[in-house]
Amino acid sequence: MSKKRPLILVTNDDGINAPGIRTLIDVMNTLGDVMVVAPDSPQSGMGHAITINDTLYCNSINVVNGDPHKEYSCSGTPVDCVKIAVNEILKRKPDLCVSGINHGSNSSINVIYSGTMSAAVEAGTLGIPSIGFSLLDYSMEADFGPAKKFVKAIAQQTIKNGLPKGVVLNVNIPKLNASEIKGIKVCRQANAHWEEKFDKRTNPLGRDYYWLTGEFVNEDKGEDTDEWALHNGFVSVVPVQFDLTAHHAMKELNTWDF
Amino acid sequence: MSKKRPLILVTNDDGINAPGIRTLIDVMNTLGDVMVVAPDSPQSGMGHAITINDTLYCNSINVVNGDPHKEYSCSGTPVDCVKIAVNEILKRKPDLCVSGINHGSNSSINVIYSGTMSAAVEAGTLGIPSIGFSLLDYSMEADFGPAKKFVKAIAQQTIKNGLPKGVVLNVNIPKLNASEIKGIKVCRQANAHWEEKFDKRTNPLGRDYYWLTGEFVNEDKGEDTDEWALHNGFVSVVPVQFDLTAHHAMKELNTWDF
Repeated sequence: MSKKRPLILVTNDDGINAPGIRTLIDVMNTLGDVMVVAPDSPQSGMGHAITINDTLYCNSINVVNGDPHKEYSCSGTPVDCVKIAVNEILKRKPDLCVSGINHGSNSSINVIYSGTMSAAVEAGTLGIPSIGFSLLDYSMEADFGPAKKFVKAIAQQTIKNGLPKGVVLNVNIPKLNASEIKGIKVCRQANAHWEEKFDKRTNPLGRDYYWLTGEFVNEDKGEDTDEWALHNGFVSVVPVQFDLTAHHAMKELNTWDF
Repeated sequence: MSKKRPLILVTNDDGINAPGIRTLIDVMNTLGDVMVVAPDSPQSGMGHAITINDTLYCNSINVVNGDPHKEYSCSGTPVDCVKIAVNEILKRKPDLCVSGINHGSNSSINVIYSGTMSAAVEAGTLGIPSIGFSLLDYSMEADFGPAKKFVKAIAQQTIKNGLPKGVVLNVNIPKLNASEIKGIKVCRQANAHWEEKFDKRTNPLGRDYYWLTGEFVNEDKGEDTDEWALHNGFVSVVPVQFDLTAHHAMKELNTWDF
């Protein structure tokens, strides 16, 4: 690894034209050889969706302003992008996969809805050290500047140390100025959930329809959670696994009388 | 719970007209008051996708042949169906949510791609005891008959015992005759992954496109896994959690020099 430049796959779920992925590409160009394979349109909230009953298009894009990386735009989901990058576009398995920087939080329970994190998890299932990055600012005008040094530090450490088998990183960055961010904290996922509110309306033809809206409810008072870290000015790093087995529940289930 | 009939929410990802959900409804009608809220079209491979930039329609459907349950057809994903059922359609929180019976396996790593399991997980985040059921037969002509008694037994035990907080069940049923199924085994998720193969084609306008195909690779020789159980004639029950924190990796990450 120390002899050659690492090969880095970059993707996201806000689409290839989102400002967040541009920041991520800039940082990764300082660390290795970069291949971008990202959705051609926004895919927020797609979770771990894959395209199984439709065609996939994947097109090379001209990189402007002389940057050294290569870019492909793909018609599928974030998970599709990782699959097609690894199997059809890249000549070898990448040394790192980074996804984001997402416009908006993927802390706590949001990890299960997140296309950003699903791309990182998918790369993880393929044995690639992977990180999802998110900034706690939904705006397309968000300032990704303060995030840069943390993204770089975490990516460098991941390239250097690797990650335990079956583990990827979920990194969230608070919406603060660089001078206000206190550092990086390794955390557990806070125990929180969404309380939905549906906005019911009637369309011009008289048919009822809904918009999904909701409120994030954090029931977890722990000071070792990602929510606590973010509210207290830290960048949160949660190690995420895709073995979903609740090992602690097996003993109880084995007492059931089926 | 023993005094009144339990309220049971039924959903799936193959769509409200799939044979698998009809079997599930039949069994649940013997156990409680059933409300069906399911996608109006197939949603396989949708993972934990939600509809955040589009409208949602949800329509009451006439139940034929005098069955006692109620049905709604919804334009969204499996997760949307659970959210709208709990927040807009049901008058109280259900005592059980069941999803499926899926046409095809959701064992091992398939849990992360599965709309069936995402619906169950979503209900779990809302504090509802939940189970995803899948039959290892993709055919629309699959025989769901042998599954019935296992579905009933597992649902009954879940209503009776509840589930530990933060845990839902992933149940897979082998494609065997009733007399060949040996029983129910509580298992861990096997360590397996998909090796993708993309089928590259050219459309009539000369543009390249892909179909996603793949091969399931099980690297896990353990006899305590869902894959082992299914290959050896058992129904597999994996307790699944949605706290994805890899607690075992935190110590190592805390040694990193950020």
